[in-house]
Formats: sequence, structure tokens, C-alpha cells
Amino acid sequence: MPLICTGTIGIDTVFAPAGHAERVLGGSCTYFCAAASFFSPVRMVAAVGGDFPSEFRDVLSSFAGVDLRGLETRPNSKTFAWGGKYLQNMNTRETLFTELGVLAEHPPTVPEAFADSRYVFLANSHPAVQLNLLSQIRGKPTVVADTMDLWINTAKADLLVLLRKTDGLVLNYDEAELLTGRSNSVAAARHILEMGPRFVVVKKGEHGALLAHRDGLAALPAFPAEFVVDPTGAGDTFAGGMMGWIASTNAPDPASFDTIRRSLAAGTVVASFNIESFSLDRLRTLTRSELDTRIRQYADMVRIP
Amino acid sequence: MPLICTGTIGIDTVFAPAGHAERVLGGSCTYFCAAASFFSPVRMVAAVGGDFPSEFRDVLSSFAGVDLRGLETRPNSKTFAWGGKYLQNMNTRETLFTELGVLAEHPPTVPEAFADSRYVFLANSHPAVQLNLLSQIRGKPTVVADTMDLWINTAKADLLVLLRKTDGLVLNYDEAELLTGRSNSVAAARHILEMGPRFVVVKKGEHGALLAHRDGLAALPAFPAEFVVDPTGAGDTFAGGMMGWIASTNAPDPASFDTIRRSLAAGTVVASFNIESFSLDRLRTLTRSELDTRIRQYADMVRIP
Repeated sequence: MPLICTGTIGIDTVFAPAGHAERVLGGSCTYFCAAASFFSPVRMVAAVGGDFPSEFRDVLSSFAGVDLRGLETRPNSKTFAWGGKYLQNMNTRETLFTELGVLAEHPPTVPEAFADSRYVFLANSHPAVQLNLLSQIRGKPTVVADTMDLWINTAKADLLVLLRKTDGLVLNYDEAELLTGRSNSVAAARHILEMGPRFVVVKKGEHGALLAHRDGLAALPAFPAEFVVDPTGAGDTFAGGMMGWIASTNAPDPASFDTIRRSLAAGTVVASFNIESFSLDRLRTLTRSELDTRIRQYADMVRIP
Repeated sequence: MPLICTGTIGIDTVFAPAGHAERVLGGSCTYFCAAASFFSPVRMVAAVGGDFPSEFRDVLSSFAGVDLRGLETRPNSKTFAWGGKYLQNMNTRETLFTELGVLAEHPPTVPEAFADSRYVFLANSHPAVQLNLLSQIRGKPTVVADTMDLWINTAKADLLVLLRKTDGLVLNYDEAELLTGRSNSVAAARHILEMGPRFVVVKKGEHGALLAHRDGLAALPAFPAEFVVDPTGAGDTFAGGMMGWIASTNAPDPASFDTIRRSLAAGTVVASFNIESFSLDRLRTLTRSELDTRIRQYADMVRIP
């Protein structure tokens, strides 16, 4: 069943304890779609500028399941660029620079051919933009959104409208606290359920995630990774694995508690591969069989025997 | 099979966002033994001063499985007292005061009647004291130790001798990093395995725990607790539930990977009850049936369906 993602494509510069990478392919939509494509075809809606390197386009094309018909190229604009630095423990990062480029312009349009998408992921962006993109999809798709502190602080009214139209929200622990004023993640997640979504995933980076669903709670540790090169894209590949899995199920209720739990295991594991390298380097060589093996390992690691 | 714990009994004063408690019963051995007693009889070896209130002795006696023959009362000494304050997010605490009292004197003696203990938990203390206490146990018991940054910094040689005599070590994430110089918890835990123990439990508070065992890795989230009153004793009740469970199994190999994993679920759940109140208030009313129910809930929450 068709899955669509709207978000950013970026040119990233990353400094990490293990090394650095300059002007490599990144962005929320990039990471999401690459991750999702292991489980399901995925439609990308994003914009880049005239400076977008053709090699990056080739990388995107190399993920066979990614449909690039929604990738807009704006010859007179610049691609979004971001630079960041991770500190020793990898949990804290500093933004070094942000060049908005196309992100400062009108959002990309959802192609007519994508309007029948049944699963929608709205990567982090102004909630009014997310609502506008969602309005271009026909019918009643399963909708999951991401957000960030900036929109909670500056566009909360729009965000609350969006939440009433979503099945699920994924956000970081700090953002959940900011949105609800509750520092306990269970209390914060339960509070968000009252704002509309059927489920909320509170991401805690290397500490895993909490799922609060109207039908129950689940706690998921991260995959215990020994060698982390670059955490960039961990949250987006987590969401991509999750949504790709959901879209692959053809379940009568794609947002049921058990389906979401299984999907989060898939997301956790794709993210654990992604952080083994800069950019999409690891995902480019990853196979579905490697993924399935690690998903089984993960399920066994968290099981109480 | 008999389980023994050596550690502290304290008079605690705790300030937390939910309230405060002055001069209440605490200490590592107290929390450990109360928690362990839900699963197995447990022998306490600890010292208190002449100021130790008789009501506190009654509380200890109310845990039917706790054998108090190793509780030394020193009429001319003072009981260890500790004051601490938790900040809003409960992950950070400040020590307000420490009155060592009996802890500055010679350690308590293991009664001859306890020398046949088959399971030994050495709560946090100078590793030379831990080694001395261990030397009073006959035969080849299953030994698990706790430690802290102070001993890693000041008594590392003794600690390394102790590690070669233990089956398992439980310690906080920060301490694992300090002991090994590795900031990644998986790498740190694997390094500790090379120092002697068959298994290491890296505790991460509200983020759960990592188990590194010679036979595999496991990741355990904390029980998602919505109402936390006082985190004091969380680590000790976790260890108590773990060791009480292990002692209850009569398994031919009590430190096998699967037994330790099951025991950590028990420890996680006892700790989740303990933090619902100050001191032992919640554990005093807790029943084995409530525990078993939550252990089943926990196992279901972490399962990938």
C-alpha cells in the first residue's frame, strides 16, 4: 500500500568523535525514505536547489523502492544545508550552521499521482505546512507526524489542529515535555493522546523509545550498539522503518497496538544500522536479510525468557 | 538456598519534587533485603548505632524473610545518616549531608550461622571490606557486587582483585565509563567482562539496564512509571529483586544468561514499586501477587509481538 513522506533533503556537514563528513547527502525525507524502502515502496515529496549534486540523485535512485516523482528541483535556489557537531557521548549536538535555501520558499507540491497514498509521514516542518501537504492527499490515510521544539514554541495552535488529524506522533522526550509541561515521559505521552493521536512514540535516542497507545504501553530499548559513527538521521530512519513496516502489513487496522509495536522494532533496527556510518553509507549496502537477522536478534534481546 | 547481603542501614532525609521525608529508614542493605525477601529468605549483615529507632527494627522484622541475626547494634556509635535532594527530573540528586557513624568503624562480622550462604550480594562499600566479608563465606557461592565512583578512583587495585572473585557486577553507567574509560555502555560492559565477572549489569535509572553476559547481550527498559515519589533505593531494590529471584531458582547454573535475564525483570519490577513512595512504605504493603502481576505486565510490554 502506497506510503508517502514529505520532508527535507539536505547537504550535511557532520563532526563526530569518530571523524567528520563534509557536504554529504542528508535530510529527514532522505533518511526516512531510504529506511522505509527496505519494507515498502515509498514516495518522496521534497525540494532541492540547482546545486544538488547529480551523485546525490544517483544515491537516492539506488534505493529501488523510492519514487522520486515528487522531488522538485529549483534551478535558481539552493539546497538546504546543515552543519552539526556531536560531543563525546553522542547525546548532545551543536548546530554549526543552517542555510535554509529551498526551505525558506513555498513547500513542494504533492504530485497528483501521489494523492492516493494510504500512509502518510509528515516529517518535521511548520505544522501549517504539514496540514497543507496533508490536505493534498485524498481519502482517509494513516497519518503520522514528527515535530520539534521550534513549532511547539511558535505554532502550537496549528500543531494542535494537526494532532487532531493524525493517528500517531513521534517526538523526542524533550519535545514531549515541552508540549505537555510534564517531565515524566509516561505522563507526557498519555497527555498527548488526549490531544488526538491514537499513539505517541517518545524517542529517547540511545535509551530507546516509549510507545503510548490507546490500547497499552510498551517500552523499547535501543539496539545496544557498540560502534556509533554518526547519530544523524537516527530518528528519521527509525520513523522510516516504522512506517515502511506498517505500510507493508496490509493490516485491516494499520495503527493497532501490536502492529505499531512490531513496526517500532523494525524502526529501531534500521536506525541501529544507519548510525554505523555517515550519511547513507551503511544503508546503501544493507540487505533485507541483514535487517531481518538483526530484528530477530533484537526481539530476542528484549524478551524476558 | 540462602542469600546474604552486606551493606548499609541508614537514616535518610530526602527532598523530592513530590515532598520530603525526614529521618526515615534507608540504606543499601535495607532496600536490598526488603526487595529480595519477596522471592527468597535473605540474611542481613550490617551495623547500626545506639540511636537506631526500635520502630525501624520493627519495620525490618515485618519483612518475614529477612534474617536479622547479622544486624549488629553498637550502643556507643551512631547510625549512618544521609540527606539528599532530587531535582525536578529525578535523574540528578545532590547529597546534602553524610554522617558516617558506624561506617567509619570496623565492618560488621558475618555470623557463623551465615557462613554457608550460597548467594552473596556485596553492596557498595570499600572493595577491601567487600573482600573481607566475602572471605568469611565458605565454599563457592554465587557472588555479585556493587561499587561506586569513589572506589574506582581511590581503590582500583582492590576492586580489580574483587572483580576476579565475582560472578556479576552491577554498577551505574557513569561508573562503568569511569572504570573502563569507554563512554559506550556496550563497549564498557564488554571490557568489564574481561576483568573477571561472567556478567555485568549497567544500570541507567529510568532508562533501564544493559546486561552483558558471556553468553549474550540483553537490553531492559525500566518499567514505565507514571508517578515517581522517591528514587532512593531504586538500584538496591533492583539488585535485591534480582538476587532474591536467582536464589529462589535452585538452578544448576544460577548465573546462566536466561536466569539472569529473568532475575532482572524481577528486579526492575520491585524497584518500580519502591519508587512509588518514600522509604519502604510501598514495599511494606506490597504483595507477591501484585509483584507477579506487574512482572507479567512488564514482560508483555517489552515483548515484540
